[in-house]
Amino acid sequence: MIKDEFEFIQSITPKKTFQSSLIKGIGDDAALFQGDNRFDEIVCMDTMVEGIHFASQTMRPYDIGYKVLASNISDIAAMGGVPTYYLVSIAIPPHWQVEDLRQIYNGMSDLARQYHVDLIGGDTVSTKDVLVITITVLGRVEGQRQLLRSNAKPDDVVFITGYVGESAAGLQLLLDNDKDYDYNELEQQLIRAHQTPIPQIKEGRILAGKEVRVSLNDISDGVASEAYEIAEASQVSIVLESDALPRSKALRLFSDEQQLKWILNGGEDFKLIGTVSAEQWESIKDDFAIQGLEIFKVGIVKEGPANVYLIQDGQTTRLNKAGYNHFKRNGDR
Amino acid sequence: MIKDEFEFIQSITPKKTFQSSLIKGIGDDAALFQGDNRFDEIVCMDTMVEGIHFASQTMRPYDIGYKVLASNISDIAAMGGVPTYYLVSIAIPPHWQVEDLRQIYNGMSDLARQYHVDLIGGDTVSTKDVLVITITVLGRVEGQRQLLRSNAKPDDVVFITGYVGESAAGLQLLLDNDKDYDYNELEQQLIRAHQTPIPQIKEGRILAGKEVRVSLNDISDGVASEAYEIAEASQVSIVLESDALPRSKALRLFSDEQQLKWILNGGEDFKLIGTVSAEQWESIKDDFAIQGLEIFKVGIVKEGPANVYLIQDGQTTRLNKAGYNHFKRNGDR
Repeated sequence: MIKDEFEFIQSITPKKTFQSSLIKGIGDDAALFQGDNRFDEIVCMDTMVEGIHFASQTMRPYDIGYKVLASNISDIAAMGGVPTYYLVSIAIPPHWQVEDLRQIYNGMSDLARQYHVDLIGGDTVSTKDVLVITITVLGRVEGQRQLLRSNAKPDDVVFITGYVGESAAGLQLLLDNDKDYDYNELEQQLIRAHQTPIPQIKEGRILAGKEVRVSLNDISDGVASEAYEIAEASQVSIVLESDALPRSKALRLFSDEQQLKWILNGGEDFKLIGTVSAEQWESIKDDFAIQGLEIFKVGIVKEGPANVYLIQDGQTTRLNKAGYNHFKRNGDR
Repeated sequence: MIKDEFEFIQSITPKKTFQSSLIKGIGDDAALFQGDNRFDEIVCMDTMVEGIHFASQTMRPYDIGYKVLASNISDIAAMGGVPTYYLVSIAIPPHWQVEDLRQIYNGMSDLARQYHVDLIGGDTVSTKDVLVITITVLGRVEGQRQLLRSNAKPDDVVFITGYVGESAAGLQLLLDNDKDYDYNELEQQLIRAHQTPIPQIKEGRILAGKEVRVSLNDISDGVASEAYEIAEASQVSIVLESDALPRSKALRLFSDEQQLKWILNGGEDFKLIGTVSAEQWESIKDDFAIQGLEIFKVGIVKEGPANVYLIQDGQTTRLNKAGYNHFKRNGDR
């Protein structure tokens, strides 16, 4: 329960800001920042609901704040952009303690500091039942670098920028054992992947910097679902190779079947999936290697209709679009 | 209950857009639009919660959508800007019917059409209990036109751009009689002021166009509270004259005492309150008159400390800051 709203807002207002274009942040009718015609502006919005997208069994308040901001910054990454500002709207029920609310903001501000993103506004309202938190993130990308889902073309290489499936595996551990269980090192890696995922701004920036045609999507709903979004937006078929899908040592704690299920349908990994022409692939792979970042070729693009296939043990099967998604049950736009 | 989320999102996706700077709206990881260094960008965010900020007794679903967008556009008006884009995040409980949800979006899109604001993204999630709707609105204003609350100076004229108190009076009627009661014409005016308030973009644009120092705030929480925000941000005293506060014919259906209470503490009128130098006042008044718009001188600014006073029947009293606010009970930042 917040007693003094003004004091609470003061306590979560950043003492310093990073972005030089900011004119006025928190404290007026709206935030104000300088426009710049060298850049395109990016904006996205994500909501998390208590009891739907998070629960106290699996997420500390700190993690909730961290993750909802991470999921938004990931959307900026998937546009090849740099995040600049964020706004937070929070509907607070009476049973939430001020200290836990502060922890939500601490989780956000720790992540924001890493990316030099400034909190510039939002809304604080009361509600009767469950906590609902909505974040808007703004970002920018150099003009004409449109890393859209609709950019894929036949014969493109399909890539993923890191290990996927870990977040769903981490969630399974948390549901089986609670968040305070004594996990081993590999298990902790899976839990961190679920609680405090790392948005891939660096990876997106490499892809935007190439100045070539790239289709790109962040993996919030599992590889199958995200590949379908590219396939549908581009009207192409995507063919994934099961053996090429990267599986981390931590994920290998589970059965092969379970690994594949989580990779394809787990979600909330916030790695990037995309396509580039075969001619560009080697150069992009080299750029990632130079920066010590991971990128894996996992399939190829074929002519439409819009479908996603998996080749496994010489057999080709059409994948279902539906991934399950604990974090965003209804998906986002 | 939404059965097919994809179909629902399709149904609320605008078929055409107004803003030429838009590159990609709904349908990718984030929305993308061109930056422009002739303008400063404005961004604000507001949340409405079922049972806190609205109830079925007083607001149709259409009104809910209309009003939450209006309250955001009003924040853009208070910065002297033009709204350009909006994003909607909605957490939907099972008891809401698709047709009512569509009406929320209809209310928004009818208002958006008037201001040429494009819906470019958001999030759609499920929740268990009450509907929560959050809107982010983006806008722009020519560079160096910063109509901030902190701009007031001693000897400024204090003005209000229209009749206030009507929204609170309308709410009272709705609480007394329900929204389907057979109201007379003046009462209907009060109810419209509550259900479908008109954000004052034109008024804000005149003030921004003057290229002079203007302090400005929109009246979401009542005149007393908004005047305090200017007084505190500018470290000045504001002295209001009771007789100068404009009272519409409709508001005069109620007692003098009730009128004053609603003007000072009612809120949700979304008119603008601000200050300009005495030298500029006549010219601004003329500009409003030429465009057929209302503006009233309601007081003057004096040297600090930050306080708001009311002169009534020759007596000066210090006003309380606290306005009640049904719409945004916890206020916004």
